[in-house]
Amino acid sequence: MIKVAIIGASGYAGAELIRILRRHPGVQLVGLASRTHAGQPLSAAWPHLPDPTPFTSPDAALAEADTVFLATPNGYAMQIVPTLLERGQRVIDLSADYRLPPPVFEAWYGLPHTSPEHYPNATYGLVELHRHELPEARLVANPGCYVTAATLALAPLAAEGLAHHLIVNAASGVSGAGRDAAGTSFAEINEDYKPYKPAGTHRHTPEIELNLARVQAQGRHVRTHGERRDLTLTFVPHLVPMTRGILVTAYATPPTPPTEAELYELYRAFYAHEPFVRVTEALPRTKGTWGANTVWIALRLDARTGRIVVFAALDNLVKGAAGQAVQNFNRMHGFDETTALDTAGVWP
Amino acid sequence: MIKVAIIGASGYAGAELIRILRRHPGVQLVGLASRTHAGQPLSAAWPHLPDPTPFTSPDAALAEADTVFLATPNGYAMQIVPTLLERGQRVIDLSADYRLPPPVFEAWYGLPHTSPEHYPNATYGLVELHRHELPEARLVANPGCYVTAATLALAPLAAEGLAHHLIVNAASGVSGAGRDAAGTSFAEINEDYKPYKPAGTHRHTPEIELNLARVQAQGRHVRTHGERRDLTLTFVPHLVPMTRGILVTAYATPPTPPTEAELYELYRAFYAHEPFVRVTEALPRTKGTWGANTVWIALRLDARTGRIVVFAALDNLVKGAAGQAVQNFNRMHGFDETTALDTAGVWP
Amino acid sequence: MIKVAIIGASGYAGAELIRILRRHPGVQLVGLASRTHAGQPLSAAWPHLPDPTPFTSPDAALAEADTVFLATPNGYAMQIVPTLLERGQRVIDLSADYRLPPPVFEAWYGLPHTSPEHYPNATYGLVELHRHELPEARLVANPGCYVTAATLALAPLAAEGLAHHLIVNAASGVSGAGRDAAGTSFAEINEDYKPYKPAGTHRHTPEIELNLARVQAQGRHVRTHGERRDLTLTFVPHLVPMTRGILVTAYATPPTPPTEAELYELYRAFYAHEPFVRVTEALPRTKGTWGANTVWIALRLDARTGRIVVFAALDNLVKGAAGQAVQNFNRMHGFDETTALDTAGVWP
Amino acid sequence: MIKVAIIGASGYAGAELIRILRRHPGVQLVGLASRTHAGQPLSAAWPHLPDPTPFTSPDAALAEADTVFLATPNGYAMQIVPTLLERGQRVIDLSADYRLPPPVFEAWYGLPHTSPEHYPNATYGLVELHRHELPEARLVANPGCYVTAATLALAPLAAEGLAHHLIVNAASGVSGAGRDAAGTSFAEINEDYKPYKPAGTHRHTPEIELNLARVQAQGRHVRTHGERRDLTLTFVPHLVPMTRGILVTAYATPPTPPTEAELYELYRAFYAHEPFVRVTEALPRTKGTWGANTVWIALRLDARTGRIVVFAALDNLVKGAAGQAVQNFNRMHGFDETTALDTAGVWP
Repeated sequence: MIKVAIIGASGYAGAELIRILRRHPGVQLVGLASRTHAGQPLSAAWPHLPDPTPFTSPDAALAEADTVFLATPNGYAMQIVPTLLERGQRVIDLSADYRLPPPVFEAWYGLPHTSPEHYPNATYGLVELHRHELPEARLVANPGCYVTAATLALAPLAAEGLAHHLIVNAASGVSGAGRDAAGTSFAEINEDYKPYKPAGTHRHTPEIELNLARVQAQGRHVRTHGERRDLTLTFVPHLVPMTRGILVTAYATPPTPPTEAELYELYRAFYAHEPFVRVTEALPRTKGTWGANTVWIALRLDARTGRIVVFAALDNLVKGAAGQAVQNFNRMHGFDETTALDTAGVWP
Repeated sequence: MIKVAIIGASGYAGAELIRILRRHPGVQLVGLASRTHAGQPLSAAWPHLPDPTPFTSPDAALAEADTVFLATPNGYAMQIVPTLLERGQRVIDLSADYRLPPPVFEAWYGLPHTSPEHYPNATYGLVELHRHELPEARLVANPGCYVTAATLALAPLAAEGLAHHLIVNAASGVSGAGRDAAGTSFAEINEDYKPYKPAGTHRHTPEIELNLARVQAQGRHVRTHGERRDLTLTFVPHLVPMTRGILVTAYATPPTPPTEAELYELYRAFYAHEPFVRVTEALPRTKGTWGANTVWIALRLDARTGRIVVFAALDNLVKGAAGQAVQNFNRMHGFDETTALDTAGVWP
Repeated sequence: MIKVAIIGASGYAGAELIRILRRHPGVQLVGLASRTHAGQPLSAAWPHLPDPTPFTSPDAALAEADTVFLATPNGYAMQIVPTLLERGQRVIDLSADYRLPPPVFEAWYGLPHTSPEHYPNATYGLVELHRHELPEARLVANPGCYVTAATLALAPLAAEGLAHHLIVNAASGVSGAGRDAAGTSFAEINEDYKPYKPAGTHRHTPEIELNLARVQAQGRHVRTHGERRDLTLTFVPHLVPMTRGILVTAYATPPTPPTEAELYELYRAFYAHEPFVRVTEALPRTKGTWGANTVWIALRLDARTGRIVVFAALDNLVKGAAGQAVQNFNRMHGFDETTALDTAGVWP
Repeated sequence: MIKVAIIGASGYAGAELIRILRRHPGVQLVGLASRTHAGQPLSAAWPHLPDPTPFTSPDAALAEADTVFLATPNGYAMQIVPTLLERGQRVIDLSADYRLPPPVFEAWYGLPHTSPEHYPNATYGLVELHRHELPEARLVANPGCYVTAATLALAPLAAEGLAHHLIVNAASGVSGAGRDAAGTSFAEINEDYKPYKPAGTHRHTPEIELNLARVQAQGRHVRTHGERRDLTLTFVPHLVPMTRGILVTAYATPPTPPTEAELYELYRAFYAHEPFVRVTEALPRTKGTWGANTVWIALRLDARTGRIVVFAALDNLVKGAAGQAVQNFNRMHGFDETTALDTAGVWP
């Protein structure tokens, strides 16, 4: 049994980690830490969890853990990761701290990076592309929701040299903003649909570009710190009046597009052995991934304009956060990759 | 391994049965029948289920099964149950066909009952009250969503002789009406809240009364065909703009009410060993039961009027349908009652 | 033209007052005050209002006004009303400050009342019952949303001596909690239905009782400070995942109930000349009152229990707040009561 | 007073026409026709409309009318328009029948056109571009929701020669599919976001292209049957879990883009005198147009890619259907263009 601690257990990603890991046969949860709820029972934060276990402080939670999930705000992981690694604990960080080269992080997040020396030790935790690096990983940078959807939508095109004139138009449910987000009151969100941080101003932009640049340079199985070939795109996210779900609608306009059938062949081959990637003719819907670790992908060739349109849907709290983190955990510890992870969602 | 068939697998309760039973370690799904989707893959009806298994006809599904779940419209079970029982198959019927004495069924459902002789063989499948009858049951009448919530909310009062002047004010999400319900279009449901079939006109009224009349006569553990002491109540359901969830707000006005503390003691004792009943000071919310087999109960004594108010929340497709059916299945076949059933929901 | 100021113009009731009054042919809006948005354009608070008019401070807004709408938190009106009345300005107060006798207010709201001497000068602004007092009113206490719905649902029964064993089970959309309410984030409200402040703990309880006690004593047209005959009831509110709307489901159990037809006759006569009260056989739905000043009422006699069930729906921001305030304004200033007020809502 | 008939008064666009026209001081509603509800009161179809007026048959409704609004399914108008024009009645057709050259209509709608000889008599009713043609119009083809939003979002770019590599990514509320649409049940729409008819398969594609081709050729004020310069684009619509609202996110990649400030100058000049077009720095939200005839436009230049992103929001049932039809009516009959039309929506 691996002893696991979750730091940030009173946030949405934390709640999903608890939900998934309490069913994991190889895990013993030894600490659920929350700064805001330490000492209170789980049900104080989570109406769905009857467990009487109390939240603890981070220090108490970390004491016994073999592996630590950090579901904390950006800027927290970089402070404690050096100590955790030194003590021999393995870390899966759901925040952005180790996803980007520190200068890029600092430029886009407006925060100084306090442990840049550990960036070279971080493995980028997008399992579908970095599978082979994970068994040895001590520190995993778990990618976020938009980035996972956009990268998996476009990686086969990038690998094939078809990633021209990329536009990523994306839409997200409200939980992506976290539990304490301002401006997410029901009365102002319901019956509303709106763009936000569009056109090169959202922090996920450089991470999508970095991921695709790696695939463009290295192909199917990439290494976090390997070669990359530059690639720039337009990213425009929108907010949808729903709780969960991300759908990316991505556009590529290569000089000579393949046929739609060839494109499906490319995608099916690329993801042939991936348990969580579902490539179908049917167009994806976010609700079809609700509660599951699935990424659902379809594509169309617009015959009139020669443009490729790729759709990818996922649950932002599962494949976009906690589920992906457990998928990384399974790879790190030699469990079957699907352990404790659903490949089917909940409907309706 | 018990070989299981689901008839009505393209309805909502059917989908939930598939979702739950595919994780059940003692079950082999040998047939998923749908009149409307026979021959098509599961994903044709269910975007969340990637399985390539096709739906079959009912006959094909029934051929090999040891136990059959009927998630079919009212009036169907009564036609095939005689044959199934004769062949030695055990049946869990999620429809209303065997829940009520046939004359009461006929009066409230406006359908002639074609196999009334099997009603005495039916066990009423509300596990919390009928636990001891289930191991021998060949035919289980699985209660519906409103009835489960209302009965469990009021059973302790009925057992204690406190069920005076009962009013059951209830609210349900839209999925309770099933997949093909008219008048459930998003544009006419969202931003709406409304009563329907109020004040003695909803079919669930006599079933709630029958259940409580049994408890009033027999106490904690009742028998389906045992004594009952009459009891009449007012039932008013409402439709809420949400997909899942039932909340019952029940009012009782006994001549001499106990204190709130005494009432909590009564409820805690009554449900002390029930894995799926959660009695708390905190008021229940339907979302806290989302996807789980939980019934969440709280109560208040209105000190100014001496009236008892009891709240009970559940997920109408789980504890109010498929989850309860699997709970019955577990009792019938000697599995632990919680096998394959979550005691925690999904949040947010 | 009446010069009108709105204090609290950046709250939801304020927004509705602006929306309604900008179409009022007898009104000149001379000041829109907001503590939080003073100096900013309307569109900074209200995406739906293109007007470039800026919000001002309360003092600036009050300078020129003949009539002042106070859409402010409880406890604010009691501080400035003495000055406003002294300067000869008329006031319509949407808060609770002058709705209840000051000792009752203090007991239920936990606030000391700083101008109790003005309570005898306040007219209770439920037009359907207090129509004849309004033309002379200098200070109107505009009732809230639950109270308006519950009072109009039950007033005919109270007038007829049928208001026995009253229970008011109510449900509200989220905007009733105001713009800054904690705990109203979309992710925690959508797909949830829950009770709150039940069974004699919600502040609106004594106000409903007071209103019905007056009608019970005085009949059809009551006076704010006239006789009243005591009456106690159980009030249980719930939160619905929708933005607007209140539906009250009220239960009365008189010793000898009339027939349903007699009850309809009673209600139709009682509200015969009311432009905003709609009594129908069809059951009300909150969406049918969306954006309108309508109260939609229906009733049923539960023949099996002899219990009367009355339903009343309204838009909590219109008839439950701003629309009712303008209705009061129209009565005070001799305008037709429906001026600027819709009698039809928006659908879907 | 203009005598007006509405054919299709029991559909959503019909309901909005009634809501708007009942406040129009120059209109007398002489007939509200519905095939499905003829003889029933308005409230049978519309819970929000208390009016006792009954629906009639189309023939009865047409008898007295000066001007006829056709809010009918595609294929109906083409059958009765010849007769109506012959009788001297003026027609505003909300369906697609006269929006496109008949051969284009037939190719995209799969219906034979039975009165193609009247297409040259039709005026395209997008007031912002066709203002000068409308006073003489006898037959107006009222554009639909996606087309209105996309055309107004991109017309200034087309006029300026900047409409290169166009992509129109759009999202719509559910009411756009009409009242009887299959697959719009609440349980399958709530918590879902999905694309449909993407990439050159949606019928609105050629209409957007035609509109922009005219502006590209003719500039600011175009003529329905004037010159046009070809233009092809990719159109991908999505369904949002909300009732009303359209948001278009349009992408253009001209060889040499202007600055963002120059683009705002272009848009502000283009729409300087339009009462219903609102150009702001603030990003549009559909909810900000709820119930109003507004089109809300903003734009961004993605400095990293040189791509222009334009956003346009509107209420699909108002500016996207009934409101635009009344705007056309006002132009045809010499009323002020804003008569009976709100320039502010409802919030929250």
